[in-house]
Amino acid sequence: MIIALKKNTRKEDRDHLIAWLESYGVGTHVSEGEYQTVVGLIGDTTRIDTDLISGLEIVDSVTRISEPFKKANRKFHPDDTVVQVADKAAFGGGQFELIAGPCSVESEQQVLTIAEAVQKSGAGMLRGGAFKPRTSPYDFQGLHEEGIRILLEVRKRTGMPIITEIMDIAHLPLFEEVDVIQVGARNMQNFELLKELGKIDKPILLKRGLANNIKELLMSAEYIMAGGNEQVILCERGVRTFETYTRNTLDLSAVAVLHELSHLPVVVDPSHATGAARYVKPMAMAAAACGADGLMIEVHNDPPHALCDGPQSLTPEQFDDVAKAVRKVRAAVA
Amino acid sequence: MIIALKKNTRKEDRDHLIAWLESYGVGTHVSEGEYQTVVGLIGDTTRIDTDLISGLEIVDSVTRISEPFKKANRKFHPDDTVVQVADKAAFGGGQFELIAGPCSVESEQQVLTIAEAVQKSGAGMLRGGAFKPRTSPYDFQGLHEEGIRILLEVRKRTGMPIITEIMDIAHLPLFEEVDVIQVGARNMQNFELLKELGKIDKPILLKRGLANNIKELLMSAEYIMAGGNEQVILCERGVRTFETYTRNTLDLSAVAVLHELSHLPVVVDPSHATGAARYVKPMAMAAAACGADGLMIEVHNDPPHALCDGPQSLTPEQFDDVAKAVRKVRAAVA
Amino acid sequence: MIIALKKNTRKEDRDHLIAWLESYGVGTHVSEGEYQTVVGLIGDTTRIDTDLISGLEIVDSVTRISEPFKKANRKFHPDDTVVQVADKAAFGGGQFELIAGPCSVESEQQVLTIAEAVQKSGAGMLRGGAFKPRTSPYDFQGLHEEGIRILLEVRKRTGMPIITEIMDIAHLPLFEEVDVIQVGARNMQNFELLKELGKIDKPILLKRGLANNIKELLMSAEYIMAGGNEQVILCERGVRTFETYTRNTLDLSAVAVLHELSHLPVVVDPSHATGAARYVKPMAMAAAACGADGLMIEVHNDPPHALCDGPQSLTPEQFDDVAKAVRKVRAAVA
Amino acid sequence: MIIALKKNTRKEDRDHLIAWLESYGVGTHVSEGEYQTVVGLIGDTTRIDTDLISGLEIVDSVTRISEPFKKANRKFHPDDTVVQVADKAAFGGGQFELIAGPCSVESEQQVLTIAEAVQKSGAGMLRGGAFKPRTSPYDFQGLHEEGIRILLEVRKRTGMPIITEIMDIAHLPLFEEVDVIQVGARNMQNFELLKELGKIDKPILLKRGLANNIKELLMSAEYIMAGGNEQVILCERGVRTFETYTRNTLDLSAVAVLHELSHLPVVVDPSHATGAARYVKPMAMAAAACGADGLMIEVHNDPPHALCDGPQSLTPEQFDDVAKAVRKVRAAVA
Repeated sequence: MIIALKKNTRKEDRDHLIAWLESYGVGTHVSEGEYQTVVGLIGDTTRIDTDLISGLEIVDSVTRISEPFKKANRKFHPDDTVVQVADKAAFGGGQFELIAGPCSVESEQQVLTIAEAVQKSGAGMLRGGAFKPRTSPYDFQGLHEEGIRILLEVRKRTGMPIITEIMDIAHLPLFEEVDVIQVGARNMQNFELLKELGKIDKPILLKRGLANNIKELLMSAEYIMAGGNEQVILCERGVRTFETYTRNTLDLSAVAVLHELSHLPVVVDPSHATGAARYVKPMAMAAAACGADGLMIEVHNDPPHALCDGPQSLTPEQFDDVAKAVRKVRAAVA
Repeated sequence: MIIALKKNTRKEDRDHLIAWLESYGVGTHVSEGEYQTVVGLIGDTTRIDTDLISGLEIVDSVTRISEPFKKANRKFHPDDTVVQVADKAAFGGGQFELIAGPCSVESEQQVLTIAEAVQKSGAGMLRGGAFKPRTSPYDFQGLHEEGIRILLEVRKRTGMPIITEIMDIAHLPLFEEVDVIQVGARNMQNFELLKELGKIDKPILLKRGLANNIKELLMSAEYIMAGGNEQVILCERGVRTFETYTRNTLDLSAVAVLHELSHLPVVVDPSHATGAARYVKPMAMAAAACGADGLMIEVHNDPPHALCDGPQSLTPEQFDDVAKAVRKVRAAVA
Repeated sequence: MIIALKKNTRKEDRDHLIAWLESYGVGTHVSEGEYQTVVGLIGDTTRIDTDLISGLEIVDSVTRISEPFKKANRKFHPDDTVVQVADKAAFGGGQFELIAGPCSVESEQQVLTIAEAVQKSGAGMLRGGAFKPRTSPYDFQGLHEEGIRILLEVRKRTGMPIITEIMDIAHLPLFEEVDVIQVGARNMQNFELLKELGKIDKPILLKRGLANNIKELLMSAEYIMAGGNEQVILCERGVRTFETYTRNTLDLSAVAVLHELSHLPVVVDPSHATGAARYVKPMAMAAAACGADGLMIEVHNDPPHALCDGPQSLTPEQFDDVAKAVRKVRAAVA
Repeated sequence: MIIALKKNTRKEDRDHLIAWLESYGVGTHVSEGEYQTVVGLIGDTTRIDTDLISGLEIVDSVTRISEPFKKANRKFHPDDTVVQVADKAAFGGGQFELIAGPCSVESEQQVLTIAEAVQKSGAGMLRGGAFKPRTSPYDFQGLHEEGIRILLEVRKRTGMPIITEIMDIAHLPLFEEVDVIQVGARNMQNFELLKELGKIDKPILLKRGLANNIKELLMSAEYIMAGGNEQVILCERGVRTFETYTRNTLDLSAVAVLHELSHLPVVVDPSHATGAARYVKPMAMAAAACGADGLMIEVHNDPPHALCDGPQSLTPEQFDDVAKAVRKVRAAVA
């Protein structure tokens, strides 16, 4: 961390700051310039609050050289983390999974039909929403408890582990038997929820917020990991840009950046990112080509009549085609 | 609402869609073009899910002509809503209030000192954070229950109503005596929280999310109002842009737009928007000039040592200067 | 195009508008609703200025249903355009090319060394900047005429066609022998330049602006094509987002969207998009996987000492590795 | 400037870098940390190309502490620059002007009518577009030479100095008698144009690009000033955000930031920023309240029939009302 001091800072104020910084266990090095004095910090600066320092009267600017995340940081954990799900699926360290299923759970018959189809096409995990975040209070909000019950029933019949989204801490008991808990984009900075999920022993799939950058995603992962739960799967699902032909803009370079900065596995969701079924295949192939550790894809047996997010769902036949294409790409880049 | 159908849509599919739409109580009008058939919807389309329709095989595009919010919509409630707080403060309909106080509650002495100072300068309401959303799990997170206790104690001694931020439904019982509950920018789309706040009888100050547009802000207000609680104060606090000299970009045109679209009062927070004390005065004056119904400003008796967001806090003396300038502007534009 | 009229519009004003619209050769269809009257336009609305209409007192909103671009529109030209370059390279319709070379032309020896290396690795075209757009007036601006002379000399010795960027109409005579003229991101809406390039008979590679959406890119292509020059290659090179780990965010879904909306070939530039050599390979592979018609990649024989944009340049050896990986991906997805 | 070196940098490579940096006339100071070695640069680093340095193999990151602009920098020119226009108008140093007129010049009668009206309401300068940047090649592009002739004729009859936009260097001779040349948002980084405008002796009004930040705006001003022309007026006209109710988002905090960083005057254009006549008054008042040195406002005698940008034009009567309100606000904040 580099702290630039204002031009006419008195020596005693500077010394006062340095003493305070050193009380956090970091070393300091002062470099005096013609226009500015710069204090360099040496050691672990993770616990130093840059906002606090930049508020000091004598400080001109504060720049972090090293990253503020630690447990999620590849520098301190060079090897890939492999997140194992119920001995049936695994993400990271070369292991790749297809997660597929409907946006919303509508009925047991619907989920079972889709699950059996996508399993045959190679999906290793089943997704389905029981609690749905919707912009309008008048839109369908999900089947809640009943939705989770249906997912568990279909897991029993197919053997596929399940993932579903949580929207509030109060619902946590309902997720006890769920294999992976998903934190949606709008809750990426719901810090109270993240802290609670840090206390449980279950993989968490953390989606990037619509206007959040990679550092913020990793800081949110850090919230979960700081609590003791290190089974975090990161998920790129598109960011908000000025483009309107796609719902969001899938940031595939985030896959490469996340793999460099962190040891955590990275899954890509081309369905929500593009918002259109016809763009899912090219984006799934691109994600596989650049090293994603998994894909999460919406599949519906009757997309036009889906209760939620119909336009972005593939039919089981289309999913089968995507799964084959993805396997080919993965074989080529192996 | 305007639904454009694909070119070769069969008549029976079109009729099927129209019958379904009319089951929602809206009228329809079909206009056949050379390239496209367009179905116009007439009546209250609030409950029609555009995502669902645009997912239909035969649909090319869906365009909303009227707004999807209803209770927050000025078209249906032409008069300004005045949100009354404990018979001591009021927002909207020409009534204007200054809300001031520290970012975080640190101690009773601190809060009391600041409260007495800002009250003398004309602030009608006291703010202070007990639960703090922080990007890093290693940064200070607030005093929690103790923070709320301190605020209530200071209210007793000064008579100033208090506002403080909620971060999770589970904490709601702690807010029973709080006068106004604040929903922060990161929770603007925490729909479960909004629904819960719709069930209580207490004003809610709802901050705009960092990358959310005005329609989304009003849809979140609609979540609260749909539950029965119509005492909502909207708050513009800056949006994320590519600018880096300010923390966010204060969108003052949102004040004018919100006043046109909605009857709810609009408060502006120049402290969080700019992230720098030296920009608070010009932005407070500008907000007053364009019709804000209140201002929320951070004040700290010792900004350099504030535990949180120091750089954006004014001293009580600076606040007094801002309050005077704001009064002058309001007098000029009255 | 759909025009919604204000509630109490007088019949004579409405008839006046309709007569004026029909003078443009479009048909109209009026649909009267309880809250609004909607006028639908039928036929070619390309020449109707939506800004002008939305300015009319009686108009509430204007919505385009069909696209405002015509010559670039796949609806009117279903087959892929193949842009042929000097009988040596071709883009589109299944034809794919690697364009490689230094960011800036520094010397004949430098360009020749790089050209021979990348040609051996499979590049079909040579890039190199003679005029460089730089944010600071104090940064290196390119060799200008001398740079173009060097590129032409290297073309003579290697047979590789060349592409280089134009920054001003006044320089056009210098580009007479250049094979493809590049329009950079900052000039995507330099409409006077686009109009001039519409009058010549030479392929133009048009880069997407940093904050421009796909429709604006196609409208800029339309500027060139409207003048008579239909040899336009579109180039996705990343858009500005809130991410800071990469210089820009490569929008690969734009490849799929552009291929759907337009018949023009689409090239991807992973070097400028990411701004970092280490992300070029994964992004090049991803672009190949989702159907790009070519790649433009920066290669420098001595990246650390490049006069411009060093961090994003590959060495010739690294480029060889990328070219091999891209070929494998293309073979897998063929 | 702070350069952080990679962990295992060899001493000879480091010394090589330092020698090269010192050849630019800057001093250096090395600080060795446990994880990183940091080189601090002391003196004028304006001419050092950060891109070039960050490309070096041994460099981890480069951070500018001081600003890369110099002639536009208030640090080196503490006093406000006052840009004087033809002894009739002046911007900066407490001097404030209203610039008003039609978006496009349509006819002499139109411009004269508007000019006489706005002059009576207090406008000190006349605006009008002769060359119009339009997204579509099929939209009206301006009257060109004839437009400038009309403006000059109206200047002769009213005595009002005129400002009009240039779109290409080739047109510069036509602007010889124009009082102030405007560079539009889309040309803010048309560096060849900026360099040419740096060679003339005439005030330039430079608009901020739609997705450009304040530093980039000042770097573009620096391009003009580096050529010798220091009469630059900066113009805030809104930036692109995710908001759709306004055309762009007016960034009024930019006024305060620009006044802090630079000595150049700052004018605000609420008409283009909001794109709607009804938001011009509140935004004009807000701009006046926060210290703008002038306002540029579109006025049309017949807004619904304006050939360009109708929705954002005021009538002369509305302008008179805005001018009065702005004067009141300025009196209150003086």
